[in-house]
Amino acid sequence: MSEKVLLDYGSGGRASQRLVSELFLGQLGNDELNRLNDAAELQVSGRIAMSTDSFTVDPIFFPGGDIGSLAVHGTINDVAMMGAIPRYMTCGYIIEEGFAMDDLERIVTSMGKAAKKAGVSVVSGDTKVVPKGAVDKIFINTTGVGDIIVDPAPAGDRARPGDAILLSGTMGDHGLAILGTREGLEFEAAVQSDSAGLNHLLVKLVQELPEVHVLRDPTRGGLATTMNEIAGSSNVCCELNETDIPVRPEVSGGCSFLGLDPLYLANEGKFLCILPEEHAEKALEIMRADELGRDACRVGTVTDTNPGKVVMVTQLGGKRLLNMLEGEQLPRIC
Amino acid sequence: MSEKVLLDYGSGGRASQRLVSELFLGQLGNDELNRLNDAAELQVSGRIAMSTDSFTVDPIFFPGGDIGSLAVHGTINDVAMMGAIPRYMTCGYIIEEGFAMDDLERIVTSMGKAAKKAGVSVVSGDTKVVPKGAVDKIFINTTGVGDIIVDPAPAGDRARPGDAILLSGTMGDHGLAILGTREGLEFEAAVQSDSAGLNHLLVKLVQELPEVHVLRDPTRGGLATTMNEIAGSSNVCCELNETDIPVRPEVSGGCSFLGLDPLYLANEGKFLCILPEEHAEKALEIMRADELGRDACRVGTVTDTNPGKVVMVTQLGGKRLLNMLEGEQLPRIC
Repeated sequence: MSEKVLLDYGSGGRASQRLVSELFLGQLGNDELNRLNDAAELQVSGRIAMSTDSFTVDPIFFPGGDIGSLAVHGTINDVAMMGAIPRYMTCGYIIEEGFAMDDLERIVTSMGKAAKKAGVSVVSGDTKVVPKGAVDKIFINTTGVGDIIVDPAPAGDRARPGDAILLSGTMGDHGLAILGTREGLEFEAAVQSDSAGLNHLLVKLVQELPEVHVLRDPTRGGLATTMNEIAGSSNVCCELNETDIPVRPEVSGGCSFLGLDPLYLANEGKFLCILPEEHAEKALEIMRADELGRDACRVGTVTDTNPGKVVMVTQLGGKRLLNMLEGEQLPRIC
Repeated sequence: MSEKVLLDYGSGGRASQRLVSELFLGQLGNDELNRLNDAAELQVSGRIAMSTDSFTVDPIFFPGGDIGSLAVHGTINDVAMMGAIPRYMTCGYIIEEGFAMDDLERIVTSMGKAAKKAGVSVVSGDTKVVPKGAVDKIFINTTGVGDIIVDPAPAGDRARPGDAILLSGTMGDHGLAILGTREGLEFEAAVQSDSAGLNHLLVKLVQELPEVHVLRDPTRGGLATTMNEIAGSSNVCCELNETDIPVRPEVSGGCSFLGLDPLYLANEGKFLCILPEEHAEKALEIMRADELGRDACRVGTVTDTNPGKVVMVTQLGGKRLLNMLEGEQLPRIC
């Protein structure tokens, strides 16, 4: 194959076939993908979760990950947030003519590793190559399906007054890592993206505690936005304690310097868990037993005082409303 | 909402929420999409087909369709080619900052209409807005799942010597319509894209004739490439009669003028059907009874003479090999 991705590789013809068989099947192949039919034939339980995400992150390689692993993690996490075991995934690549084949190989290899670790098979794909300038380097869509294993499934409208609000780890790492790399800032090396596949931990959690009401990952818009969505969908108040929300010192420092709020920054390997008070300790125990939930902690409580709102109890003991993200802090964060 | 798509609309915050609730839910909404969870919760049969496609077509509006309807048709057709009833679809939009809101509305409306006509629900979505210049106008990914209703499912490796090769209609319309509009050529008005949802016809076909071996839509790379893929996967020879392959006179004329071969041009509302000889007449009858299969005809036979090859019996009675597309005739055709 050529050192650069040519338009021919997206033609659907012989060059496409070469790219597919030499690169994609090599890294992502399995019995179903290898059949190269128009669609994959899959066995699922009958009650499934399905989610899609397009990834346009800039830069495509960053500390802690790349657009390939991120595209796997983002989608399987969304599927797992429904109390589902992610099983199958599709990948749609849109590649700029002239993109370095080495970089594509690195990305696809990274996807393959992430998918394998998550136990998910890539079963169908699509590759488009567009002329130079029609897309910035490479965008990837992934869509996943999984078998839902709890009934009812966790959902954003199921938070109830009295529920505990837990967080699996520190906030803001992914967002700041991306920004730091993009702008070539000095803290770049110290801050890593938290991009990770949460499905094994989440499946364990809902298997042991099917009472979980809400699971949600605070990606674009950060914790503040996600909490507002839940407060709105469930028509409850989410009360958070500022001092309990874990933020790494280097993230906190970088944010202060740049005038960013870590509660509005995207995370790609963390989740919120809202569940009845009496199960909170058990949930934290399960989360902390997993490397990805090591820093899990309780950050607040669901109340009925200000339905639809998120209230922050500040470090000084005052209360303020925490609003949804207005405007855009960082485009192309995921 | 603003007249132009702003970066804010892809932030995941309040502006995103407005775009989703005012535009996307208005045109595509249903009980599951309206819940706005990270993933949709769906009921399927347990044996499903899943397919993904990213659409980068240029221009985004063309005679006979637009990127919105095309994105629906492309994916549901791929699902239906597995002998499946397409049920659910996800949509991932990547939009350039500054894109006209009117155009976005037109595209989303068109998707909604196409999905409704096909009986498919859009259950999950994602919207990214990237800075000006990072994408050319708008790209859309759609991923579909459907319930497979025949066992075994039609597949590219099931063609057998003796099978009849049927085609549902004329070749080259979509490819030439796109090229004509892009280049502002004179035949533009006369040639329309054939973009259409084939699922109702295909479901009827496999319900009445579960004996169908292969269903495949000759999209990128055209009929020649698709036939070669099938010949390769099934390790058979596909013998086609040139005079039997339907091409509209205006398409044939446009292709001659431009030096293009209609057998390598993309189609978005046609399919190939390969099945045992004895069912060929019945299949043609079913196809012709549907508006989308009005021009259905038999175009060839599967043989065992040149395994892996496609042989064309020319107008003059000679035989020549019909190769897979080499290189790229037309980028951004779908």
